[in-house]
Amino acid sequence: MILTVTLNAALDVTYLVDDLVPRTSHRVDAVHERAGGKGVNVARVLSALGRPAVVTGLAGGPTGGLLRAELRAAGLRDELVPIAGDSRRTVTVVSRKDGDATVFNQSGPAVLPDEWAEFLAHYARLARDAEAVVLAGSLPPGLPPDAYGRLVTVAARAGAVTVLDTSGPPLRAALPAGPDVVKPNAAELVTATGRLDLGEAAAELLRLGAHAVVTSCGPDGLRTTTPQGGWRAAPPERLTGNPTGAGDACVAALAAGLAAGTPWPELLRDAVALSAAAVPCPRAGDVDLGLYRRFRTTAPVEKIHATHPDR
Amino acid sequence: MILTVTLNAALDVTYLVDDLVPRTSHRVDAVHERAGGKGVNVARVLSALGRPAVVTGLAGGPTGGLLRAELRAAGLRDELVPIAGDSRRTVTVVSRKDGDATVFNQSGPAVLPDEWAEFLAHYARLARDAEAVVLAGSLPPGLPPDAYGRLVTVAARAGAVTVLDTSGPPLRAALPAGPDVVKPNAAELVTATGRLDLGEAAAELLRLGAHAVVTSCGPDGLRTTTPQGGWRAAPPERLTGNPTGAGDACVAALAAGLAAGTPWPELLRDAVALSAAAVPCPRAGDVDLGLYRRFRTTAPVEKIHATHPDR
Repeated sequence: MILTVTLNAALDVTYLVDDLVPRTSHRVDAVHERAGGKGVNVARVLSALGRPAVVTGLAGGPTGGLLRAELRAAGLRDELVPIAGDSRRTVTVVSRKDGDATVFNQSGPAVLPDEWAEFLAHYARLARDAEAVVLAGSLPPGLPPDAYGRLVTVAARAGAVTVLDTSGPPLRAALPAGPDVVKPNAAELVTATGRLDLGEAAAELLRLGAHAVVTSCGPDGLRTTTPQGGWRAAPPERLTGNPTGAGDACVAALAAGLAAGTPWPELLRDAVALSAAAVPCPRAGDVDLGLYRRFRTTAPVEKIHATHPDR
Repeated sequence: MILTVTLNAALDVTYLVDDLVPRTSHRVDAVHERAGGKGVNVARVLSALGRPAVVTGLAGGPTGGLLRAELRAAGLRDELVPIAGDSRRTVTVVSRKDGDATVFNQSGPAVLPDEWAEFLAHYARLARDAEAVVLAGSLPPGLPPDAYGRLVTVAARAGAVTVLDTSGPPLRAALPAGPDVVKPNAAELVTATGRLDLGEAAAELLRLGAHAVVTSCGPDGLRTTTPQGGWRAAPPERLTGNPTGAGDACVAALAAGLAAGTPWPELLRDAVALSAAAVPCPRAGDVDLGLYRRFRTTAPVEKIHATHPDR
């Protein structure tokens, strides 16, 4: 199975309004609530592909209760560890007029040292049965900056490959532990390294310990940088919609492909196809499986030649 | 004591963001949660004035649990009746840049017939000890359109005066029961009657059964229409801020004054002063008591002469 870790699990709330007009009152016509956070979304995509996925991480309080109930109702295996704090909500306001989304992200409750220790023990048990481990999203307050590094080490000892999707200090602090793939987006890669050239920035993450870097570049698709070389893959069509869902679908494809030992060019084609198939879906964690099947035969992949440095 | 009824109690959530920019993601820096709904806000104002206030109405689910806990922590007497549905939230996004607020109102859970019957019995017991009853806010789904009319009748039989602050069909359907005061704002008064002239519109509400009409006209203050004549009162200073809080403070002053038998000109002066003292407070239910003391000696009140019809 594939284990996904969401240390800052959320209840994702979607409000449908006629149109968002700042400084006015809005009647909310429909409210949808479901479990969220990047790792949860990745597990949802894996489950849609028929891949057994297990959700672990931290959740608590009344909001944690609601998100765990929804997770189980959706058929996902809930291995979240309870905390005393109330889990965060994200509120996404969708305008009926144009379908555009405006997002409000809470930062999440502080995690206590005992809760983190309990999570580490539970995670170590789960990792033994995992072919791949996905570590995704922000760190809640109270966790050590190298939290993801410790989880990478435990997974590697258990024989699982690791995919890490985070940014800023939690990303940098995890690199010495040697994650198999890190997946920043282009802006996160530039911020983490201070380098504007994506190839140079990715090479720096390799030097710092990552075994491979996959950078998501929005509508331009994906590029990977590994010690064996680089490839890039573009979506076969221009699509507009939900970039959050696209990133989570990309991570799901990377975890499934790495667990199966798929070689890089095919792995990247699959990831760009699944990622593109998530873009038209309004909710992160959903993919259009018909589009995915079409794109995975048509998405172009090409080798990046070191003699032609490229942004 | 004064009994306030909130049939659609809410958890009012305030999100502080740098600036609200539609179609982008926002990091929420501060989250404040407290019990809300117009009746709850009115009780909070009465309590700040040292007047014993009791909160009843309907609340349920995890959100109802949170709002009831906050109510009790604030020192208000919680006599809410539990329902199976989860109470609504309102989300107010406040921009740090300019202090402006953007509001998202959920409609609230449906109330079951048994829950309404249980509420009626509990309300009838509470009304016996009340000098005044405040009925404020929208009706949740599932209640009969004349719900407020029935509550007015029960209060009148128990010897309590009634102040009704609602709009649209729930307002019109309550008039035959003879509420002592109805408090629409100018737009609600026009919508309820189809008449653009505020004096004529208020006179129609009297004909339909209201004993008095107090119309809130934003920065222009208040005007009252009674069988004994009309008065208007203006705030002594131009203030900008929170119009929701101003309406709830006005209702609190009307209930307290009616309970004490205060004559109309003084009652209206008090209501406009308390209302104006709420405008600078960002959260509905809060008033600036220093401003209130100053305004209640300086707010001008004048008789409206029927020979000078006025909008």
